[in-house]
Amino acid sequence: MRPGHRYGLHRVVEPEGTMPQPAWKLDNSMELYDNEILIDVETLNIDSASFVQIREAEGGDPVKVGEHMQNIVASRGKHHNPVTGSGGMLIGTVRQIGQQLAGKIDLQVGDRIATLVSLSLTPLTIEEIVKMDVKTGQVDIKGQAILFESGLYAKLPDDVPDRISLAVLDVCGAPAQTAKLVQEGDTVVILGAGGKSGTMVLYQARKSAGPTGKIIAIEYGEQGCAAIEKLGWADVVLNLDCTRPVDVLEAVERETEGRFADLTVNCVNIPGTEMASILATRDEGTVYFFSMATSFTAAALGAEGVGKDVNMIIGNGYTKGHADLSLELVRESAALRQLFETKYGL
Amino acid sequence: MRPGHRYGLHRVVEPEGTMPQPAWKLDNSMELYDNEILIDVETLNIDSASFVQIREAEGGDPVKVGEHMQNIVASRGKHHNPVTGSGGMLIGTVRQIGQQLAGKIDLQVGDRIATLVSLSLTPLTIEEIVKMDVKTGQVDIKGQAILFESGLYAKLPDDVPDRISLAVLDVCGAPAQTAKLVQEGDTVVILGAGGKSGTMVLYQARKSAGPTGKIIAIEYGEQGCAAIEKLGWADVVLNLDCTRPVDVLEAVERETEGRFADLTVNCVNIPGTEMASILATRDEGTVYFFSMATSFTAAALGAEGVGKDVNMIIGNGYTKGHADLSLELVRESAALRQLFETKYGL
Repeated sequence: MRPGHRYGLHRVVEPEGTMPQPAWKLDNSMELYDNEILIDVETLNIDSASFVQIREAEGGDPVKVGEHMQNIVASRGKHHNPVTGSGGMLIGTVRQIGQQLAGKIDLQVGDRIATLVSLSLTPLTIEEIVKMDVKTGQVDIKGQAILFESGLYAKLPDDVPDRISLAVLDVCGAPAQTAKLVQEGDTVVILGAGGKSGTMVLYQARKSAGPTGKIIAIEYGEQGCAAIEKLGWADVVLNLDCTRPVDVLEAVERETEGRFADLTVNCVNIPGTEMASILATRDEGTVYFFSMATSFTAAALGAEGVGKDVNMIIGNGYTKGHADLSLELVRESAALRQLFETKYGL
Repeated sequence: MRPGHRYGLHRVVEPEGTMPQPAWKLDNSMELYDNEILIDVETLNIDSASFVQIREAEGGDPVKVGEHMQNIVASRGKHHNPVTGSGGMLIGTVRQIGQQLAGKIDLQVGDRIATLVSLSLTPLTIEEIVKMDVKTGQVDIKGQAILFESGLYAKLPDDVPDRISLAVLDVCGAPAQTAKLVQEGDTVVILGAGGKSGTMVLYQARKSAGPTGKIIAIEYGEQGCAAIEKLGWADVVLNLDCTRPVDVLEAVERETEGRFADLTVNCVNIPGTEMASILATRDEGTVYFFSMATSFTAAALGAEGVGKDVNMIIGNGYTKGHADLSLELVRESAALRQLFETKYGL
C-alpha cells in the first residue's frame, strides 16, 4: 500500500497546496493508502442546505436529484455541493483498514460506523442510487468512501436507533466539552438550554456539577421553559431574551447572589448573545461558545468593554471520546432519550 | 453621592435595557455617582476610522472638525461616531473618585491616566477644543469624562513618552495573555510575529518559555523576517503565507520534529489563517486568536474537519495587570522600546 498523509493531502487533485475540504477536486480512486479506511456506504445524510438547493434545482424529481448528486461526485470526487459549500455525513460498513492503522484503532472490518467529518472532504463514489427520500435528504446508495487517518467516526450502537444516534452525534462535541469543563459544585449558566445541544449540555452539567452545583437554564418562551422545568435537571429556569444582556445580567446576579457563573455555555442559535454570556460569568470564569452564530469580534471587544477577565473558548466540535460520551447519555437517561425520540419522529 | 451600577447602566438614557456602549445616548452630567471616576481630559485619541470620516465630511477644516466632534458629544453624551460606530481613548488627570472606590483602587486624585475602554461608552463633555491635529486625530480639549467602576485605565508612566505608552497600551492584552499561557520549555508558534502585537507576544513568549523553550516566529515577507531575525528572540524565523495552511503545517512539523506547538498565537491581521493556526498546534495544545480578522466558524469547523482536539481561545483584550506588564516590557528591553520609537516616529 502507498503511504498516505495524516490529513489526506495525498488525495488533493486541485488546487495544489490546499486542504481536502477547500480543494475543488479529490482523487476518489478506491485503492487504499496505508493509513486510510475504506467504507461500503449505506446511506448519505446530505446536509440540509445542500439538499434543499439540489431538490429545488431539479424540481423535486427524485431521479433527477439522484443524477445531480452523481454529477457532483463525478466532477469533484466528493459530495461537496458547489453552490452551498456544504456536505453532510454518511453511514456505512468498514470494508478495509490500511496496514498502518489496522490494530491501532478500535475498528474491525465489518463494523457499522457514522463518519463525523463532513462529506465535503470525504472521497466518495456512487455506483447506484438505491433509495431516495426527497423529504429528508437521506439517500441510500451503493458506493464507497474513504476516511483519512485524521477523520472522525463513531461506531453505531445496536441498542440505539440510527436516527437518534445521528441526531446525538451531530452535537456530541457540546456535552463532551461540558464534561471536561464542569467541576463538582460549579455554578453553570446555559443560554439556549432548550435546543438539541442545549438539552444535552444541561443534562451533562447537572451530572458533572452534582447536587452541590447550581444549574441555571435560560430559554426564551414559556413552552420551552416548561419543557426544561419538567426534566428537573436545572435548579432555576429563566424565561429570558439573551439578546438583552442587562436582563440576563440582573437575573443571574439575583439567582447567584452576586457570585455569577463559573462556566457559561452558549447554545443560542441567533446572533447578538455574546454580551449576555460574558456578563453572566464571574471574573476569571469561562464562557464556552458552542453557537455557530457567535461573532468573534463581538465577544473579544465585548469583554474588554466591560473589563471582564473571562476565558472565552471557541466551541470545538471535536474532543476525544465525544461520540461515546454522548451516546452513553441517551442510554443512561430515559428522559433524554424520549426527548430525542419525540423530536426525531420515532 | 448617588449609588451607581458597576457597568454604568445608570448612565443609559436611551434606548432602555441596553449597555452603555450600544446605547444611543448617555447621561453626561459631571455630577459623580459613588462608584465613578471623574477625569479632567487632556487629549482625545479619536479612533482612526472615526476621525477620517469626520475629517472628510468637513473637508479637512480644523474648526469644522472640532464643531462636528462637539455636536456628536452634545447629541449622544459620548464621542461615539454614529457613522463608523467607533470611539477611541483619552488621556487625562483624575479629578475626583467616588466614595465607594476611594482607597480601594490604585488611583489618587492628580494621577495622569489613559482610559483603556472605548470612548463609545465613556460619558464626556467638551467645553473647548484647545488644539486640533487633523493629521493624527489627537485632539487636545478642555472637558471632562466619567469612568465606570468596570472601566479600565492605566496610569501613564513618567519614564515612557505618552505616544509609546499609548501604542503599547493599545495591544497590551496580547503579551499579558501570552504570559499567562506559556510555561517554561514550551514550543510556541507565533503567526504574524512582525506586527505590533506580534512583536510583543514574541518577546514575552521568549521570556516565559526560557532557554529550554522553542519559539518559532512566522511572518510573510523578507523584510519583516529579517527584522525579527535581528531581534534574536526567535529560535526559528519562517517566511510563510499563513493563508496556505499546508505550507505552515509542513514547516512546523519539520522544525518541531513532528511534536508541533504547545501554544500557537495568531496575530495576523488578514482573514483565512485559522487553519494554519490549528494545524501548527499539537493535540490538546492551545490556539490563542488575538487577530480581529478571526472567523469563529472557520476556527470551530476547521478543527473538527481535521479531528484536532485543540483548545481555541478568543483573545480577550483585557486581563488583570495587562497594562503594567506591557509597559514593563518596553522598560526592560531597549530593543523593544527602540522598535516602538522607530514605528511611532519619536
